[in-house]
Amino acid sequence: MLSSDPSRDPRPSVPQEGFVDVGFARLDSDRARRTGDAEVVLGQGKTPEQVVGALRTLSALHPDRAVLATRLDEPARAAVRTALPDADVDDVSRTAVVGPLPTPAGTVLVVAAGTSDGPVAAEAAVTARVHGAGVERVDDVGVAGLHRLLAVRHRLDEADALIVVAGMEGALPSVVGGLTGVPLVAVPTSIGYGTGAGGLAALLGMLNSCAPGITVVNVDNGYGAGVHAARIARRARPRDAS
Amino acid sequence: MLSSDPSRDPRPSVPQEGFVDVGFARLDSDRARRTGDAEVVLGQGKTPEQVVGALRTLSALHPDRAVLATRLDEPARAAVRTALPDADVDDVSRTAVVGPLPTPAGTVLVVAAGTSDGPVAAEAAVTARVHGAGVERVDDVGVAGLHRLLAVRHRLDEADALIVVAGMEGALPSVVGGLTGVPLVAVPTSIGYGTGAGGLAALLGMLNSCAPGITVVNVDNGYGAGVHAARIARRARPRDAS
Amino acid sequence: MLSSDPSRDPRPSVPQEGFVDVGFARLDSDRARRTGDAEVVLGQGKTPEQVVGALRTLSALHPDRAVLATRLDEPARAAVRTALPDADVDDVSRTAVVGPLPTPAGTVLVVAAGTSDGPVAAEAAVTARVHGAGVERVDDVGVAGLHRLLAVRHRLDEADALIVVAGMEGALPSVVGGLTGVPLVAVPTSIGYGTGAGGLAALLGMLNSCAPGITVVNVDNGYGAGVHAARIARRARPRDAS
Amino acid sequence: MLSSDPSRDPRPSVPQEGFVDVGFARLDSDRARRTGDAEVVLGQGKTPEQVVGALRTLSALHPDRAVLATRLDEPARAAVRTALPDADVDDVSRTAVVGPLPTPAGTVLVVAAGTSDGPVAAEAAVTARVHGAGVERVDDVGVAGLHRLLAVRHRLDEADALIVVAGMEGALPSVVGGLTGVPLVAVPTSIGYGTGAGGLAALLGMLNSCAPGITVVNVDNGYGAGVHAARIARRARPRDAS
Amino acid sequence: MLSSDPSRDPRPSVPQEGFVDVGFARLDSDRARRTGDAEVVLGQGKTPEQVVGALRTLSALHPDRAVLATRLDEPARAAVRTALPDADVDDVSRTAVVGPLPTPAGTVLVVAAGTSDGPVAAEAAVTARVHGAGVERVDDVGVAGLHRLLAVRHRLDEADALIVVAGMEGALPSVVGGLTGVPLVAVPTSIGYGTGAGGLAALLGMLNSCAPGITVVNVDNGYGAGVHAARIARRARPRDAS
Amino acid sequence: MLSSDPSRDPRPSVPQEGFVDVGFARLDSDRARRTGDAEVVLGQGKTPEQVVGALRTLSALHPDRAVLATRLDEPARAAVRTALPDADVDDVSRTAVVGPLPTPAGTVLVVAAGTSDGPVAAEAAVTARVHGAGVERVDDVGVAGLHRLLAVRHRLDEADALIVVAGMEGALPSVVGGLTGVPLVAVPTSIGYGTGAGGLAALLGMLNSCAPGITVVNVDNGYGAGVHAARIARRARPRDAS
Amino acid sequence: MLSSDPSRDPRPSVPQEGFVDVGFARLDSDRARRTGDAEVVLGQGKTPEQVVGALRTLSALHPDRAVLATRLDEPARAAVRTALPDADVDDVSRTAVVGPLPTPAGTVLVVAAGTSDGPVAAEAAVTARVHGAGVERVDDVGVAGLHRLLAVRHRLDEADALIVVAGMEGALPSVVGGLTGVPLVAVPTSIGYGTGAGGLAALLGMLNSCAPGITVVNVDNGYGAGVHAARIARRARPRDAS
Amino acid sequence: MLSSDPSRDPRPSVPQEGFVDVGFARLDSDRARRTGDAEVVLGQGKTPEQVVGALRTLSALHPDRAVLATRLDEPARAAVRTALPDADVDDVSRTAVVGPLPTPAGTVLVVAAGTSDGPVAAEAAVTARVHGAGVERVDDVGVAGLHRLLAVRHRLDEADALIVVAGMEGALPSVVGGLTGVPLVAVPTSIGYGTGAGGLAALLGMLNSCAPGITVVNVDNGYGAGVHAARIARRARPRDAS
Repeated sequence: MLSSDPSRDPRPSVPQEGFVDVGFARLDSDRARRTGDAEVVLGQGKTPEQVVGALRTLSALHPDRAVLATRLDEPARAAVRTALPDADVDDVSRTAVVGPLPTPAGTVLVVAAGTSDGPVAAEAAVTARVHGAGVERVDDVGVAGLHRLLAVRHRLDEADALIVVAGMEGALPSVVGGLTGVPLVAVPTSIGYGTGAGGLAALLGMLNSCAPGITVVNVDNGYGAGVHAARIARRARPRDAS
Repeated sequence: MLSSDPSRDPRPSVPQEGFVDVGFARLDSDRARRTGDAEVVLGQGKTPEQVVGALRTLSALHPDRAVLATRLDEPARAAVRTALPDADVDDVSRTAVVGPLPTPAGTVLVVAAGTSDGPVAAEAAVTARVHGAGVERVDDVGVAGLHRLLAVRHRLDEADALIVVAGMEGALPSVVGGLTGVPLVAVPTSIGYGTGAGGLAALLGMLNSCAPGITVVNVDNGYGAGVHAARIARRARPRDAS
Repeated sequence: MLSSDPSRDPRPSVPQEGFVDVGFARLDSDRARRTGDAEVVLGQGKTPEQVVGALRTLSALHPDRAVLATRLDEPARAAVRTALPDADVDDVSRTAVVGPLPTPAGTVLVVAAGTSDGPVAAEAAVTARVHGAGVERVDDVGVAGLHRLLAVRHRLDEADALIVVAGMEGALPSVVGGLTGVPLVAVPTSIGYGTGAGGLAALLGMLNSCAPGITVVNVDNGYGAGVHAARIARRARPRDAS
Repeated sequence: MLSSDPSRDPRPSVPQEGFVDVGFARLDSDRARRTGDAEVVLGQGKTPEQVVGALRTLSALHPDRAVLATRLDEPARAAVRTALPDADVDDVSRTAVVGPLPTPAGTVLVVAAGTSDGPVAAEAAVTARVHGAGVERVDDVGVAGLHRLLAVRHRLDEADALIVVAGMEGALPSVVGGLTGVPLVAVPTSIGYGTGAGGLAALLGMLNSCAPGITVVNVDNGYGAGVHAARIARRARPRDAS
Repeated sequence: MLSSDPSRDPRPSVPQEGFVDVGFARLDSDRARRTGDAEVVLGQGKTPEQVVGALRTLSALHPDRAVLATRLDEPARAAVRTALPDADVDDVSRTAVVGPLPTPAGTVLVVAAGTSDGPVAAEAAVTARVHGAGVERVDDVGVAGLHRLLAVRHRLDEADALIVVAGMEGALPSVVGGLTGVPLVAVPTSIGYGTGAGGLAALLGMLNSCAPGITVVNVDNGYGAGVHAARIARRARPRDAS
Repeated sequence: MLSSDPSRDPRPSVPQEGFVDVGFARLDSDRARRTGDAEVVLGQGKTPEQVVGALRTLSALHPDRAVLATRLDEPARAAVRTALPDADVDDVSRTAVVGPLPTPAGTVLVVAAGTSDGPVAAEAAVTARVHGAGVERVDDVGVAGLHRLLAVRHRLDEADALIVVAGMEGALPSVVGGLTGVPLVAVPTSIGYGTGAGGLAALLGMLNSCAPGITVVNVDNGYGAGVHAARIARRARPRDAS
Repeated sequence: MLSSDPSRDPRPSVPQEGFVDVGFARLDSDRARRTGDAEVVLGQGKTPEQVVGALRTLSALHPDRAVLATRLDEPARAAVRTALPDADVDDVSRTAVVGPLPTPAGTVLVVAAGTSDGPVAAEAAVTARVHGAGVERVDDVGVAGLHRLLAVRHRLDEADALIVVAGMEGALPSVVGGLTGVPLVAVPTSIGYGTGAGGLAALLGMLNSCAPGITVVNVDNGYGAGVHAARIARRARPRDAS
Repeated sequence: MLSSDPSRDPRPSVPQEGFVDVGFARLDSDRARRTGDAEVVLGQGKTPEQVVGALRTLSALHPDRAVLATRLDEPARAAVRTALPDADVDDVSRTAVVGPLPTPAGTVLVVAAGTSDGPVAAEAAVTARVHGAGVERVDDVGVAGLHRLLAVRHRLDEADALIVVAGMEGALPSVVGGLTGVPLVAVPTSIGYGTGAGGLAALLGMLNSCAPGITVVNVDNGYGAGVHAARIARRARPRDAS
C-alpha cells in the first residue's frame, strides 16, 4: 500500500525479554516461568500457516515441554500433521500437542452430560493433561436418566478436581455439586436449539446453581476449565497424605 | 374533563351475552360454559375496590361455584376480608376464593424446590383446587440435596399431573421429569440474584430441559400451571380404571 | 493421540442396569419402564452412523415397541433408509420410526397457524402418535383470518389435548385458549424475520398469553409438545365415560 | 458554583424565530406552523414548576388553540390545577389541556384489551382529540374472550383510524387487523409480569403481527399513537364522500 | 409414513367460505372484501412451486385485481417468470405482481436514508402501489448530510403519507418527523454491523423518536409500511378539497 | 383457608435421614458428611424468624462446627444478635456465624478492585474462613492504577487459591491471571451504572478473559467463590511439601 | 467479627509510592503525574463520610489543584458543604470541587438535546472545566425542531471538542456530526421510557451513527466525556495558530 | 416492472449543491468543506460496480485529495484493482485509497491486543492516515502478558491520540488508559466465542472502563476511531510547542 501506510512497514523481530516477535504476533514465551502452565496457541482466527509457525517457535523455545494448540479447524490440523509429524493431533478435541507430556500429578475427572458435549469434554481433558494433571472421564450421564450418574457416584469423590460439561439446561453440575465436595468447574456447551442455541441457557443455569461452590467458564471453553482444574490437581495433597 | 373527552362519557352497563359491563371492565361471565373453568379476577393492576366489585359481581352470577382472585396485595386482601366475610383469603398464595369448592377429581401434586418458592407453589395449589382437582404438595426438595427428592419419589407416579416449581437454575423439573411419565408443568420463579434475578435463568433452564415432555409457564405463573394441571387431572381416568 | 490421553482409551461396553454403553453414548434403555414413553434418539449433533447405531441398538432391545428418531438431516434420513429399510422415514417432520406403533388411546389435535409451521406441527404429530395417542390435524388457521379458525371450532372440544403451533407473533394459542377448556400446549416456531427471527416473539407471546392454562415448550420443540400431549391423551377418560 | 462554571451563567431569554427561551428550555413555538399539530409539554422529567411554566408560556403564545401536557404525576397535576384553574386535568390519562379544543374532524376509535390498559388508552384518546380528531372508545375486548370483540366488530369499519392498546402478549391488534382495512396503530403497554414485565412481549408481538399494515409505537406511548391517528383522521375524506 | 400418520392423510380441498384449501395451505381468499387490500403471498419459507401455486390460485379467483408476492428469492422469481409470463417480477424489491394495478388514489412518498436501504424502500413502494396509492420516492438523504434532505423538504408536505426507511442508527424519521405533519411510518432496516447488525439499533431509535406521531414496523418490513401508508393515502381528501 | 387447601395442612416434622423438617423447610442436615462443607442458611427471601430458626436448628445438630448465614438484611442481623448472642454477626459482609471456626488449612487471598466491591469481598472472605481455609485480603488495586497491584504482586503466588472481585468492566482478573498460576476464581459485582448496572459487563468480561484458567461465579456471589476457593486451599499440599 | 476474620484486622495506613491507604481505600495519588488529569472521587457507592474523607485527603496532597467529586447524592453534598465550606458544590451536576481551578486552555462546547439531559450535560461541563478546558454550552436543540440547532450552527466549528448529550433515540450527535469536523464525543442519557428506559436506545443510536468520527461513552457518563474532551482541548493549537 | 412502478423510473442525475446523483446514490461531495475530512465510500452492502463508480466519481471531483473506500470484500477489491490501477488496495484492512495522501500532522498510535485484532487495527491506521494524521502501531500487547505492554509504555505518551483495539474481554484500554493522559479511543472487535462472540463483551468492558476519559466506537469500527483520532492529531499543538 502507500509508503506511509504503517501496516506495511516491516516490523523487525527484535527479541525482547518475555516475548518473541514472529512478525504477525508477539508470542508470550514467558508463561511457564510466571504461571507454571504450558505455552498455548489459540487456533481460532489464525491461518494454518500462523498456527504452524507459532507451534514451531514455541516448541523450539521449550523443547522439554508440551506446547498445546486448540480450536484447530480441519485445514489447520492437516497443516500441523504435515509440518510437525511428531505432533499429536486429535480430531475430536480439535487440538494438537507438540513435545513431551509432563508427569501427571493428581487427578481431574471430566464428566459430560451427553454425546454432543464430547468435543468440549475432550478439549478439557487434553488441556488438563498437558497442564500436568492425570485425567479420567465419564460420559453420557445426563440428569434425565439419573441412574446413570448414581452408578458412578463413587468416582466423584476420588478426584482432586471435577470438570462437568453440559449443554441444554446445564443441570448436571447442580446435581453433581450436591453429591460431593470436590472443587468443581462447570462448562456450558453450545449444544441446544431455540432459546438454548449458543449455550446461554446452560451458562445461566450453571451460574445460578443452587449447589454451592460451582464455578463456571465461558460457553464451550473446555480449555479454560482444563487449565483451572489442572492447577488444582497438581498442587493437591496426595490421597494417602490427606 | 372536556365535554368532548370520551374517557369521561358514562358507559351504560348494558348486559350482553357472555359479558357483564361493570363500568371499569367487561367481565367475561361465560368462561365456565366455554371452558369448564372457574371465573377468575386477576388482582394485579386493580384497585381494592375493583377487586371487590368484580368478585361480588361474578359470585352473584355464579353462586353455585367458586370464584378465584389472584395476585392480591395486602390492601386488596384486607378489602376482600371486610367486604366479603365468607371469602377464603390466603396471605401466602395471595388469593381469595368465594363460593363452594368443586368436588375434587384426580390429583395434582405440586413439588417445590425451596422455601422461597412457596408462594408460587401455593398459588398453583389453590388454583388447581378451585379448578376441580385434588391437590397434594411436596416442598424443599431441591436438586442440591437429591436424597430429599428420592425419599418421596413414589408419590410422583401416583399423581395425574405434576406442577414443579423452582427458582435459581430451575433444574428440578429435569430431574423429576426423568423419574416419571406423569404430565409435568414447570413453573420458574423469580427467586435468585445477579443473572438469576427475575427468573430468566430458571425459565431458560426449563424450556431447554433434556427431560422429555416438560411444558413451561411464565415466571411466577402458579395460576396458569394450576389451570393446566387441573384440566388434565379432572379428565384423567380413575386409577383403578387405568 | 498421546498414550496418556483418556479420550483414546477404549471404554469397555459393560452392560449395566438401565443403560447400554455403545461406545459413543450410554443409551437410556430404561425409559419405558420409568415413564411409559418410547425410546427416542435426538438426531441433532449426531452423525448418520451414530443415528443408525442408536436406532439399531434400541430397537433390538425393544423389538415390540416403536423407537423414534427426530431432527434428522438429509444424510441421516438417507442412512436410516438404507440401513433400516423397515423404518418409516418422513422428510417433512424429519423423523424416523422403527418398530410397531402402539394402539392409539385418546386424541391429540395439532393446530398450526401457517404453512411454514408445518414441519414443527408434523414433528409434534408423529411424536404424539409414537407415544400412544391418536392424532388429528388442522392447518393454516392463523388469527389474521379468524373465519378459518371459527370454521373448525367444534373440533377443539373433541380432543383430549391440543397442540397449537405458531410463529410470527404467536397469537393463535391465545385465541384457541379462549375458546375451549381442553389442556393446551403452545409451540412457538422460528418462522419470522427481523425481531421475530428465531422465535423469541412467538415464545414471549405464548408465555404471556392472557388465556388461562396455556403451557409452552421451547422454540420448534414439536417433540416435547407431542410427548406431553400424548401423556395427557393416553390417560384421559374415554369420551362416553366422562 | 465556580465563576467559570457555565451552568451557572444566566442565559438571557432572547426570543428567536421558532423557539422561546424560558430559562430551562427552548420551547418549540413553531410546531403548529410546521406540522399542524398542537403544542405539547412532556411532563416526565420536569418539575411541577417547569410544567406550569411551559404550559403558561405556550398557551400565552397560542391563546386560540389547545396546549397539551402529558405524563403528569400527581404533584404536577395539582400544580396545574392550582396555577391554571381553566385547565382540564385528568387523573386517568395523567394529562392536562389548556385552551379551546379544535373542531373534531374524522373519527379515531381507541380499542383496549383490558382494564389495566385504560390509562394508556385514555392518553391516546385525549391526544387524538386535542390534535383535531373525534374520538370513540371500546374497552375490555381481549382475545381470550373473542365474543366481546365480535360483538362490536361493526364499529371498526366506521372509524377513519384505529388505535389498539394491549399488554400481556399483545395479540389484539392481530385479530382486529384481520377484520378490517382501517389504518391501525398498535400500542403495547407495560402491563404484565415475569417475561411480560415492561411490555417487551407485547411490543414484539405487535411488530411481528401476521395481520398486514399494523404499525407500532413505543411501550405505553398513547401520545404518539394519538398524534398519528389524528393526522390520519383529520385529512380523511368524509364518509359520505368516499 | 405410517398409515396412522396424520401428516400423510390426503386432506380434501373442500372449498369453504373465505378460504381455499390448496393442499399445503388454506388461502385467505376473502381479504379484499374484509379489508379492501390486495391478496398477498409471503414468499419467505415457501418453495418456488408453492409460490407459483398460490399466485395462480389467487389470481384465478381475482382476475380483476393485482395479486402481490413478496420476499421471493432468486429461484422463486425465476419460477414465477417461467410459469406466469405476464407477472411483473422485480429483482430489487424481490416482488412479483400478477393482474392489473388499481387506479392510484392519493400519494405515498417513500424516503430512504442510504443506498443499502434501497431494497426495503422498493418493497414498500411496490406494496403501496399495489394497494391502491400513487407512489413517489426520494433516496439517499441520510442525516449525516442534512443538506440533501433539506433540498427536497417541500416534497414532504405534498404527500398524503410518508414512509421513511433507514438502517444504522435510524435517525432519519426523527428529522423528517420534525419537519412535517404528514402521517409517517418508519421502517428500520437490517443495514449495519456490530451492535447495528440485524436492525435493532434502528428499530429502537425509531420507537424512541423525539418527533411526535411516528409509528414503526418490524425490521425490513417494507410490505407492512406500504399497506399502512396506502390505506391512509387512498382514503385521504384530495389536495384541492382540503 | 379451605379445608381442602393443602397449604394449610399441618405437615408433621418427621425426622428423616439427611434432612430435618422444620415446618417451613426441609433443612439439609447431611451436607458436611457428603461434601465436608459447613451448613449454610441463605438469608435472602427468608424472614428474620426463619433465619433464626434455621440457624438454631442446624447449630443444635452440629454444635461442634460453624454454621454460616449469608445475605442477611438489617432486621435479620438484629434478630440473630438478639436470639443468638454468641453469633458473630458482621454488617459489611452481611453474614452471621454460629459455632467454633475450623482450624485453617491453606490460604485463600481475596483481591478486590475498588472500595465499593468491599461487601462482596468480605462475604467471600468469611465464607472461605468458615469452610476451613485461612484468608488474607488485598483491597483497592483496580487496573486503572496498575502500580497499586504490582506493589503487592509477590503475595499472589503465596496463596493456594485466589478470589478476585471487581465491578465495572471486571478487568482485574485478566491482569492478575496473567501474573500467576494460582487457581483463580473471579467474582463480578453489581457495582456500575448505565450498561454496567447489574454486573453484566463485569460478568462478560470475566467469562471472556484472555488470561487462561479463570473461572467465574454469579454476580455478587462471594459465597460461591469462598466455598470453591476453600475447597482448593484445604486440600492443597503445604508450601514446604510442594 | 471472629478474630480470624481478616475483614476486621486493622490495616495499617502505610504510605506507599503512588497511593495513600486511608483505611477503606488505596487512593490513587499519582494520577496527575501519570496523566495530567485531576484527582477524582466517584461518589456513587460511597458513604458521605467516605466522600468527605477522600476529598480531604486528596486536596491535602494536592493543595494547588482542584479535586473533583461526582455522583454525589443529597446527603453527600450536604456533608461536603458542612465539612469543606470552601468546596464548590452543585446540585444539578451533583458534583463538588475543592481547590483552585486550572487556567482554561482551549474550548469544549457541550450541546444537549433536551431539558431532561441537563444534569448529565452539567456533569460533563464541570468535569471538562476542572480538567483544564474552557467550557461553553448550548441546550435544548433536539432534532425534532431542527431550526433550533441550525440557529447556533456557527458555534460548533469554533470549539476544539464537542460533547453532545441526548436521550430518547440519541439522534443529535448524528446531525451535529454531519455539520462539523470537530472531534465529537456523544453521551447517551437514561432519559426515556418503554424501550428507551435506561438509555440503551440512545447508546445504540450513537454507536451506529452514520456520521463519521463519533465516539461514545457509557450512559449518563458526563464525567468520562468531560475528561476526554478536555484532554483534546488543552492540547489543541490555539485558533490563530492553526 | 409496471410502468407505474416508481423504482424503475429513471431518476435524472441533476447535480445539486453538495451532492452528486449517480443513479444509485446521492454522493455527498461536500464533506471536505464542511468537516475537513476525506470523502469515503462504505463498501459493505454495495456491489463491486457501485464501489468502483463511487470511487471514480468522488476522485474525479477531488483529484487533489485521497478518497477512501472501506469494508471491501474480495470481489470489490479485485474490481477496484482492475478499474483503478493507481488505487492503493490493501487485503488486511480491506480498504482502497485513490489519490494523493495529505501531509501528516500529529501522530496517532494504534495499539492492538492480539493477532486476530489486526484487520480492525489496520483499518483504523489507514483511515487515520488518509484523514491527515501520521500513524504508528504496536501489536499483540494483550493484558494477560503485561510485560509486553510495559515494554512499550514510553510510546504511549508520545502520541497525540491513541486507538486501542481489543476483542475478548476488551481490558486493554483500561490498562492503557491508566498509564497515560493522551486522548484514547477504544475499539472493540468481534474476536471471541461463546458469550464473547460478536464483540458485546469487549464493547461493554470498554464502556464501563474504570480508567477515565476512554471513548468507544461500534464493534469493529476501525474507520470511526481513525477519523476521530485523526481529527484530534491534526489540530494538536506540535510537541515542542506544548
